[in-house]
Amino acid sequence: MFNETMLALGKKRSCIRELFEYGLRQAQVVGKENVYDYSLGNPSIPAPPEVNETFIRVIRDMDSLAVHSYTPAPGAYDARKAVADELNERFGTAIRPENIFFTCGAAPALLSVIKALAVPDAEIIGLAPYFPEYRPFTEASGARFVEVPADYTAFQVNLEALEAHITPHTQAVIVNSPNNPSGVVYSRETLTKLAALLERKGAEIGHAIYLIADEPYRELVYDGLEVPFIPTIYKNTVVCYSYSKSLSLPGERIGYVCVPDAAAESADLFAAVAGAARAMGHVCAPSLQQRVVALCTASRPNVDAYDENRSILYDALSSYGYECVKPCGAFYMFVKAPGGDAQAFSDRAKEKNLLIVPGADFGCPAYFRISTCVSKDMILRSLPVFEALVKE
Amino acid sequence: MFNETMLALGKKRSCIRELFEYGLRQAQVVGKENVYDYSLGNPSIPAPPEVNETFIRVIRDMDSLAVHSYTPAPGAYDARKAVADELNERFGTAIRPENIFFTCGAAPALLSVIKALAVPDAEIIGLAPYFPEYRPFTEASGARFVEVPADYTAFQVNLEALEAHITPHTQAVIVNSPNNPSGVVYSRETLTKLAALLERKGAEIGHAIYLIADEPYRELVYDGLEVPFIPTIYKNTVVCYSYSKSLSLPGERIGYVCVPDAAAESADLFAAVAGAARAMGHVCAPSLQQRVVALCTASRPNVDAYDENRSILYDALSSYGYECVKPCGAFYMFVKAPGGDAQAFSDRAKEKNLLIVPGADFGCPAYFRISTCVSKDMILRSLPVFEALVKE
Repeated sequence: MFNETMLALGKKRSCIRELFEYGLRQAQVVGKENVYDYSLGNPSIPAPPEVNETFIRVIRDMDSLAVHSYTPAPGAYDARKAVADELNERFGTAIRPENIFFTCGAAPALLSVIKALAVPDAEIIGLAPYFPEYRPFTEASGARFVEVPADYTAFQVNLEALEAHITPHTQAVIVNSPNNPSGVVYSRETLTKLAALLERKGAEIGHAIYLIADEPYRELVYDGLEVPFIPTIYKNTVVCYSYSKSLSLPGERIGYVCVPDAAAESADLFAAVAGAARAMGHVCAPSLQQRVVALCTASRPNVDAYDENRSILYDALSSYGYECVKPCGAFYMFVKAPGGDAQAFSDRAKEKNLLIVPGADFGCPAYFRISTCVSKDMILRSLPVFEALVKE
Repeated sequence: MFNETMLALGKKRSCIRELFEYGLRQAQVVGKENVYDYSLGNPSIPAPPEVNETFIRVIRDMDSLAVHSYTPAPGAYDARKAVADELNERFGTAIRPENIFFTCGAAPALLSVIKALAVPDAEIIGLAPYFPEYRPFTEASGARFVEVPADYTAFQVNLEALEAHITPHTQAVIVNSPNNPSGVVYSRETLTKLAALLERKGAEIGHAIYLIADEPYRELVYDGLEVPFIPTIYKNTVVCYSYSKSLSLPGERIGYVCVPDAAAESADLFAAVAGAARAMGHVCAPSLQQRVVALCTASRPNVDAYDENRSILYDALSSYGYECVKPCGAFYMFVKAPGGDAQAFSDRAKEKNLLIVPGADFGCPAYFRISTCVSKDMILRSLPVFEALVKE
């Protein structure tokens, strides 16, 4: 009676959501202060004040019809221009407003690109550890999701394994840096090698292999680390961006796809992205949000709180004997589970009301994810539980 | 290299959009006041003032993290409850918050339902005249779009033709009342007969035939006409709603799917709708917009301007000899093209800078659509052109 794929996607809850909802229920039983919930990646710092002021200013001062009208499907031209200008200023690129397609956040941005590339037998590669939704997004688009094992030494890219997984059907590789779940930022060196590999293999198989750069965490880095803008390193890069984390507006569903002119067959790719968006009911991204982000391209989140959480957790967990690559971006840590089975370890942690996400869905079943976008108080209260667990 | 369906959808511009953009270019040539653009269905009355005040109040007074955070995928519970409460109060229904799934407008709402129902060989029926996007939405979901010819006497439902088009593969019939493009509201009598037919045919083919009620124009009616709430007439009705027209917020992408408990297998259908939304990158509907519409469920558009436009145009065109069913809802008129070929007539009109949409994409090639959400001034200036065209 119902489409089986859609029914399964609707019924199979994400393990992250299930943990989160378990935490809410458990808080009723044992008290909120006794549940240590590291499950969700929901920003814990508010939007910068100027963002909220801009929302009010746009509503109050602009013509109401103009603010709330349909924009063209790719977005209001001025807003697209503001995005392009800001990228060009920061990264020395020559992106045009016409290369920008506003979407309702990064998820539909990714799906538009994946659907655009989903030719018969298409393969889309994800590099472990990867954001779990890449798999259903790819499979629901009719393509095959190919998982490349992690580089466990530094959570950069396992280039040898990647090369072995490229076939004539490879359409794209999704990269996510700063990475969810590892918090690692791919270095310029990694990206340069990755670009060389994709150039070489693309020539070998006779068509471009696109890099889909999923970049919601681009602005969330610590220690002044560089986040290279991937289109400047590999020309066949398509960027999927979101303001969810950079402006702490996750619920507001505003992001974009950027298809630079340099990407292979960029005009057709942009058209196919637009067509895929249309096939998903995209009419335009929320028009108010388009105006607001266009006026706030210079706003940056104050990541001090995330940075402090990162340091407290990394130092404490390391001192207890946990193994973890130090995150330098996003708001996650990906920790090796003592005993090597993250599901079992996560189940043990759950008994102590410590909610951590086992890594199987990220492609690394021996690791667990901690979201560091939580309150410092909760972190401090949870540390004895982490310590007890590793000693058991 | 690219998915052919998506590329084609991205490259084939809608004829409405093309006309609109032609109008913008032509305005540069002959002057804005000499172009009579009836192409787009973009509301021409602003959002009610209390809606804009609510946007400001929510941003200014609510906790910023709470306003902008992810909501659950179906929406913030309070917002879902506000929608359900309002429906129940108006229509005497017993809709629960759990029956409501907020979406980024009516288009993804429709697509979620169509995708949920897109089993192998599925057929989705559209009743001419119908909104042109139903066809690509259905075909891109892997189902077959079946067009039922219009009831040309009153643009109600051609029940005989509908019955002839129902097969064991029929999953749903899409109805759109008040109707785009005809402006007609399906009467209680029509809907009662339609319900009886679908009950009977459903029993015959052994499974429910859903009615998908696409209702963005529900609040836009004239002369105090009743718009029956279809779930009270046919239990297997799924409602797709949008605030684009009722609150003049078309760009803000906020609407919902309502799957009442009474609909066949409602729990699974709701799950499949949620799964389809997920497969299209739905995370949640814009959270700010959810809060605003929840606080504005009692707001209604002031449709006086549309009503006046309707009367001026209907009276004038009728007096010139055009044939048209008088619209009583939405902001469109669907007029029989003199000569019987709406494409040819529309081309002739275009030469006089009068932009009207030929009806082939709506399933009625002998008719053309006029959007009445335009300025009264433009209407008055355009009347001599309408008159000249019919006399030619």
